[in-house]
Amino acid sequence: MVANSVDTNRLYLGVDGGGSKCKAIVVDTTGVVLGTGIGGPANPFHGVEQAMTSIVDSAYLALSDANLPAKLISELVVGMGLAGVNLPSMYEAMLQWQHPFRKLFLTTDLHIACLGAHEGNDGAIMITGTGSCGYSRIDGETTIIGAHGFPHGDIGSGAWLGLQAVTKVLTSLDGLEQDSAMNQTMLKYLNCENDLQLVEMVAKKPASFFAKLAFIVFDAAEQQDPLALSIVEVGASYISNVARSLQLAPPIRMSLIGGLTPKVMAWLAADVKGWLQPPVSPPEMGAVIYAKQQIESEI
Amino acid sequence: MVANSVDTNRLYLGVDGGGSKCKAIVVDTTGVVLGTGIGGPANPFHGVEQAMTSIVDSAYLALSDANLPAKLISELVVGMGLAGVNLPSMYEAMLQWQHPFRKLFLTTDLHIACLGAHEGNDGAIMITGTGSCGYSRIDGETTIIGAHGFPHGDIGSGAWLGLQAVTKVLTSLDGLEQDSAMNQTMLKYLNCENDLQLVEMVAKKPASFFAKLAFIVFDAAEQQDPLALSIVEVGASYISNVARSLQLAPPIRMSLIGGLTPKVMAWLAADVKGWLQPPVSPPEMGAVIYAKQQIESEI
Repeated sequence: MVANSVDTNRLYLGVDGGGSKCKAIVVDTTGVVLGTGIGGPANPFHGVEQAMTSIVDSAYLALSDANLPAKLISELVVGMGLAGVNLPSMYEAMLQWQHPFRKLFLTTDLHIACLGAHEGNDGAIMITGTGSCGYSRIDGETTIIGAHGFPHGDIGSGAWLGLQAVTKVLTSLDGLEQDSAMNQTMLKYLNCENDLQLVEMVAKKPASFFAKLAFIVFDAAEQQDPLALSIVEVGASYISNVARSLQLAPPIRMSLIGGLTPKVMAWLAADVKGWLQPPVSPPEMGAVIYAKQQIESEI
Repeated sequence: MVANSVDTNRLYLGVDGGGSKCKAIVVDTTGVVLGTGIGGPANPFHGVEQAMTSIVDSAYLALSDANLPAKLISELVVGMGLAGVNLPSMYEAMLQWQHPFRKLFLTTDLHIACLGAHEGNDGAIMITGTGSCGYSRIDGETTIIGAHGFPHGDIGSGAWLGLQAVTKVLTSLDGLEQDSAMNQTMLKYLNCENDLQLVEMVAKKPASFFAKLAFIVFDAAEQQDPLALSIVEVGASYISNVARSLQLAPPIRMSLIGGLTPKVMAWLAADVKGWLQPPVSPPEMGAVIYAKQQIESEI
């Protein structure tokens, strides 16, 4: 991208840091995206040092993509939303960071996703990707539903769907559930010949592994496979209930975001589907909006 | 114990190796237990070297407990049942061991538990402890139901019950399930003040952590708490179905074993309860029976 006429006195960096990658954008004061960079995992709960490294990597990559000199990192006003910093210990750990930026405004990945989806206005989001949760911000009041993690939470998420599917497939292969279209699909997808190999394959695997199996559940459910239907219906019902618990009168703006959005959408309750509107901007732009809001509130 | 008149030409060691500890007994040819030793974790899936160390530790401790010299380790004819060796890669890894014993006969922890429960005769067992599974051995034919592991399997086990309880408690604290007697009990037991602390507390915890929460579920179910009842009923129904799938006509001898036996027993179906008989001997004695069977079959 071109950077000849950029006012380098005020460059924003918007950072969306999650468990598998960190996305950063460099934005000028008018809101034009000058460059984008993708770094490694940036959930401090899985490693504070790793998160810091990934964030700085993504910032340099975004500057480079914008044809801006690396030394400008010290000029960047950074808005950053990170997974994991809803936990107070992680938030504190990241605040201790002697970061290389001009200013750093830290909040949760949920907050920036909501700001992006509704262009900085009040509203709610439900996220269904590897994990799941609901979030709303109304008159400065935050509500979080879920965001409990794997394997005990994140109902309706990719990891949850995959985990339930593995349980059902193994129970079905044992003859204790009816036969399922998922059985052979999953064995084949994971290059397993039988249940014993499947047990070995899934042992000790993280949420991201199980999330990759979610498409098997949706495909089987679309073919009316009873075991897959029972999983998808529980998951979608949970997400619908999250939406209902976040909804107000008069209705607030509400978006479903995350990698599973197109799949999950189809299974939500009719009332919830009626509330959903597409997100305006992605989370990393929400991070820039957050930084601008914080700067303005400081004046 | 006294070992003056022991025939050290033929000493058996029975080993029951699991994920948290390894139990060994030294037994003479008449079946008298001369000494007992407890070593560390011995599931090779969680570390082959650790398993070998724990087994040797438990053997020396059993010899010492029997007032027998440590050098007799090389005279021991060992029957050993290990968790994890149902996986072919783990079985192979343990067979490679340059062990210090006279002879080593390796089989699964399930096999020795079944041999012990039925004094070497044919029969079936269901295990409900940290994990769960069913096993039968009839005319040399083995059937295994479950034994799939955590968090995707082991329905009805302590770890499964605890995991379901954490999910229900977090969903209830979010207002998406009715209030439950488990909510405050679990928060208090884990020294948590709220759901956020609970999320942090349960993150990345192993099966053994969740298994310790099983008593919370049983206590609440006994008080007719609906959320706890829904968990216990699914778990007990699964164990009942495991028993039914192992049962034959005419009925085979069947035992329920493992740390949760007294709790789970109460919730099983009436037909299944009618089949259950107490185990005759513990798994480590089943390991000795296994070694004797193997020696006899070699003659």
